[in-house]
Amino acid sequence: MHPDVAFPVWCSERARRVENVIDRLLPPAAESPARLHEAMRYAVLGGGKRVRALLAYAAGEVANADPAVVDHVAASVECLHAYSLVHDDLPCMDDDALRRGKPACHVAFGEAMALLAGDALQSFAFEALAAAPLIEGARAAGLLAEAAGSRGMAGGQAIDLAAFDAALDLPELERMHRLKTGALIRAAVRLGADCGRLVDADGNDALLRYASAIGLAFQVVDDVLDVEGTAQSLGKTAGKDAVQRKSTYVTLLGLTAARERIAALRAEARAAAAALGSRARRLEEMADWIAARTH
Amino acid sequence: MHPDVAFPVWCSERARRVENVIDRLLPPAAESPARLHEAMRYAVLGGGKRVRALLAYAAGEVANADPAVVDHVAASVECLHAYSLVHDDLPCMDDDALRRGKPACHVAFGEAMALLAGDALQSFAFEALAAAPLIEGARAAGLLAEAAGSRGMAGGQAIDLAAFDAALDLPELERMHRLKTGALIRAAVRLGADCGRLVDADGNDALLRYASAIGLAFQVVDDVLDVEGTAQSLGKTAGKDAVQRKSTYVTLLGLTAARERIAALRAEARAAAAALGSRARRLEEMADWIAARTH
Repeated sequence: MHPDVAFPVWCSERARRVENVIDRLLPPAAESPARLHEAMRYAVLGGGKRVRALLAYAAGEVANADPAVVDHVAASVECLHAYSLVHDDLPCMDDDALRRGKPACHVAFGEAMALLAGDALQSFAFEALAAAPLIEGARAAGLLAEAAGSRGMAGGQAIDLAAFDAALDLPELERMHRLKTGALIRAAVRLGADCGRLVDADGNDALLRYASAIGLAFQVVDDVLDVEGTAQSLGKTAGKDAVQRKSTYVTLLGLTAARERIAALRAEARAAAAALGSRARRLEEMADWIAARTH
Repeated sequence: MHPDVAFPVWCSERARRVENVIDRLLPPAAESPARLHEAMRYAVLGGGKRVRALLAYAAGEVANADPAVVDHVAASVECLHAYSLVHDDLPCMDDDALRRGKPACHVAFGEAMALLAGDALQSFAFEALAAAPLIEGARAAGLLAEAAGSRGMAGGQAIDLAAFDAALDLPELERMHRLKTGALIRAAVRLGADCGRLVDADGNDALLRYASAIGLAFQVVDDVLDVEGTAQSLGKTAGKDAVQRKSTYVTLLGLTAARERIAALRAEARAAAAALGSRARRLEEMADWIAARTH
């Protein structure tokens, strides 16, 4: 792909690319147990913005990584994300029937099969990553596991769950998001960069600052969209936060201040990307895109 | 520990050892999100036969491995096993209220928290393994992920689930068990041995034969115990298979032939262990123990 190709073209090419990688790596739908493989494919293929995969590819460019190596990281983080959505939508969690514009996995396949599909997608994420020709493969697996576990994504879910009973204040909300969505976004950036030559300590700092800002911005935008969006534009149920009386950036800050927060985080992410030099161009563009997204 | 120590002493020392390792590696119960960490600890500590950990230690001895390295493998496979039990006991799966003589995790912590505790224990299993100073850490993670996923444990669960509607015949039952419990048992043996010097191709074959036989024997014994045992002796609900009208080795073969099958698998496992030489003594003893266990 030509390096000067426009950002939307780059995005859709990379999104298609990771879709193909996942399709190729996952067991075929006809392989026994077929229903499980169908459910896994249903949950992870054919939809989604692929933000985590795009971030991995964009970070890989900073480190001059071979995209064929980043493929494994991109597939891995998308499968981990898809598993979390499947479990999050289950009746005992958010009980949501709509996801990526389609019936949620448990609606289409039943609760038990959705539970197993999520479980198997988590395993598969580690399998895909382990197959990557990384120099420090075990360290990468450990990093992904930490991002997924109780000190990462699952921990954020647990804080979110506890928040049904007691509304969170702003520092608690921020911590919840830093775990629930931020940890995996940071891992996607970190692992994408690890696919190339190692960047120096300053570079690593800048990458981490970028990923932290962009992860949080993503979530604030989510909160704004939950208020302003429709199910049709979002592909998932809108207005959920208000119904569930959850604390969000909008309920805690108001819409105007939430939008200001997005702008500040976007500027922070752009500054961090700028410090990484010209190869971080896609990261800069992603910061703009994430801040401005409407779905 | 003296190499000639009696088998029951060896077992309880190793079981205590892996318990301590897991206790040390897991986040403390007081660390936020505390409820999640409590649930994870509840699910994996303070109970269980630790068969998978013992097999990892026993296989490690064959390869002259440092037990301090095997510790990570042992903790990892036990956490993976514990996660599968938590999810298996959920209302949408087996809906079982009793596990290891205590209320099941979802009874003690609620369904949503049990779901997350299982999810986080799976992540943690990969984290614990990644922290092991193995020569080929990424390969080990891939091996564990395959054993856990749709071509392993989760796949076996999916076949089991489908069997609610259509009873399995003997080859299908065997395939289900080879995935559902066998895959993780084989991984425990394989990874335990990988902690030491690599054994030759003949040694690897013998290890695999051993693990396959012992994994299946374990399951046939389980089926026999489900008929003959009590909830008190088993620490879980007895007679479940009959209530659920599941195919088991007992329903398909009858009790006598099921017991003969156990004896044959035990002999097969002992023969494979014998081929590995004197350092496989614990593997031999484990074959006897698994075949004769009453809980």
